[in-house]
Amino acid sequence: MSEPLSLDLASKRKRQRGDYPYHLDYRTRWADNDMFHHLNNPIYGVLIDSIINDYLIKKCSYNTSTYPRIALVASSYCDYFGSPSFPSMLDVGLRVVKLGTNSVMYEVGVFEEGVEAVRAVGGFVQIWVRRSDGRPPPEGMEAHVREGLEGLKGGAKGGEEKAKL
Amino acid sequence: MSEPLSLDLASKRKRQRGDYPYHLDYRTRWADNDMFHHLNNPIYGVLIDSIINDYLIKKCSYNTSTYPRIALVASSYCDYFGSPSFPSMLDVGLRVVKLGTNSVMYEVGVFEEGVEAVRAVGGFVQIWVRRSDGRPPPEGMEAHVREGLEGLKGGAKGGEEKAKL
Amino acid sequence: MSEPLSLDLASKRKRQRGDYPYHLDYRTRWADNDMFHHLNNPIYGVLIDSIINDYLIKKCSYNTSTYPRIALVASSYCDYFGSPSFPSMLDVGLRVVKLGTNSVMYEVGVFEEGVEAVRAVGGFVQIWVRRSDGRPPPEGMEAHVREGLEGLKGGAKGGEEKAKL
Amino acid sequence: MSEPLSLDLASKRKRQRGDYPYHLDYRTRWADNDMFHHLNNPIYGVLIDSIINDYLIKKCSYNTSTYPRIALVASSYCDYFGSPSFPSMLDVGLRVVKLGTNSVMYEVGVFEEGVEAVRAVGGFVQIWVRRSDGRPPPEGMEAHVREGLEGLKGGAKGGEEKAKL
Repeated sequence: MSEPLSLDLASKRKRQRGDYPYHLDYRTRWADNDMFHHLNNPIYGVLIDSIINDYLIKKCSYNTSTYPRIALVASSYCDYFGSPSFPSMLDVGLRVVKLGTNSVMYEVGVFEEGVEAVRAVGGFVQIWVRRSDGRPPPEGMEAHVREGLEGLKGGAKGGEEKAKL
Repeated sequence: MSEPLSLDLASKRKRQRGDYPYHLDYRTRWADNDMFHHLNNPIYGVLIDSIINDYLIKKCSYNTSTYPRIALVASSYCDYFGSPSFPSMLDVGLRVVKLGTNSVMYEVGVFEEGVEAVRAVGGFVQIWVRRSDGRPPPEGMEAHVREGLEGLKGGAKGGEEKAKL
Repeated sequence: MSEPLSLDLASKRKRQRGDYPYHLDYRTRWADNDMFHHLNNPIYGVLIDSIINDYLIKKCSYNTSTYPRIALVASSYCDYFGSPSFPSMLDVGLRVVKLGTNSVMYEVGVFEEGVEAVRAVGGFVQIWVRRSDGRPPPEGMEAHVREGLEGLKGGAKGGEEKAKL
Repeated sequence: MSEPLSLDLASKRKRQRGDYPYHLDYRTRWADNDMFHHLNNPIYGVLIDSIINDYLIKKCSYNTSTYPRIALVASSYCDYFGSPSFPSMLDVGLRVVKLGTNSVMYEVGVFEEGVEAVRAVGGFVQIWVRRSDGRPPPEGMEAHVREGLEGLKGGAKGGEEKAKL
């Protein structure tokens, strides 16, 4: 059985692609760069939002129009280690750090094509509430959502298959 | 020899992937969707900007920090025929409509993976000026930039190789 | 009675604040600037979208969640005459150019605080369709929407009160 | 003398406008809303970036093109307590939490016009490096930058004048 990954800054700086079970590539855009010719830091938040919701929609039957529950962001965080620029391809990896009754803590690693070291490690804490009243239900997440998110708990170190699309 | 493509609305609506010599795929992001769950229309402008500058940087030696000339946008336009949503993959194609002394008119077609019909056709007119004084030089574009842009004048109909990256 | 404003490029370049009956100020943001330290051109599309929808929501009872009709963008256009930068305040003006049965052509002028000359003139053509089936209804726009939009047809030259918020 | 503000979540949730010495109003834009008709969370990062750089440019002589030092973002964080929507006006407040030799920890509170409770509290840690070699200089920040940032250490509770623009 694998050791859980440490969450201190020195450990995050050493994250590898294999630490994340789900990956998507994102091509950078002209508007991503800021005046210093590097990705503007809120763009990492856009990528974090995107890979998490992509996984929820494709792997957990989440439908943003009609689903009986809504996933809200309670807090977000990101540590920046290096600066990709447009034009480039990013390899974005996703894992689940903690899974509570109605909450999930995600971690996303942003890598750049052709670069070994991780560029940024961030994520957010998400709360699942009922669409009807905006409250977290006492019975917690639905079984199939929980199962989908359980699949993101291990990295390659834990032996999970890399779910590259 | 191939016929030039017509620029009327009915013709644009029938554009095909083969009408564009240069293609890049862009993965959509959560933030691209607007309140109606479709790509917000300024996102097409972001894609147009991105593929044009990607081509200039990779194929015409354009360097946004040090290049002696700067490419300014004089006007932009877009016609919308259908609405992709996040999550999806877009296939964006680029061609040159007109090439003047210091100006270029580009056309970009936005296609969606798995969908035959074109989703949007837009572009802009770009003016090349000197970085030193912001004026268009009388001698016109540099030869290697002109040559790179000439390569975008034909679509597949004209027999050019599809420069898919 | 006032003359309609000409739509040729030379006329647009001379647009004044008083040509637009509805105005909103928008503070620029760090992310608006591109690598050349000027507003990235799709940002003008964001401003155009914003002032039009602000007017529809506040003055025409448009509700983006429940309204029986949806306003789609059919085409967009913009001419760029100068480049504001972050940080700055923009004064954005809105007028209606043409009002059809189910379509509206808007024009938006972007001015910068402390600068007389207009920075950009753009807009879009919008089609109103039924939310239920996505089709334009034969009876045309609702009377109160049409009335709200009629109020945007004149500029200060036509004597309309400047609806500054 | 005033007590420093606590950084725990319960304290942040009680932040008031007067806790922040520098304020700017930002009008929301159509593109700020996500599919749930609320501000997309990376937009808070855009606002945080914007007010910090606005203060540095206007109050600390920071010039993003020629300044001998560059301010990099090392890490960012945000807690979300409520969801403003387009259209609305935001009142964004800025304070400095910690001031090191070459680093600054900022906190930004996002308020909404007409709403008492704070909507989000976030910020980032910034490192000042030399433009020439990207390294933090041993002598630390320049005196006038440090002085400008010292002016952001107290809130209204500490008696500082509210630097509302």
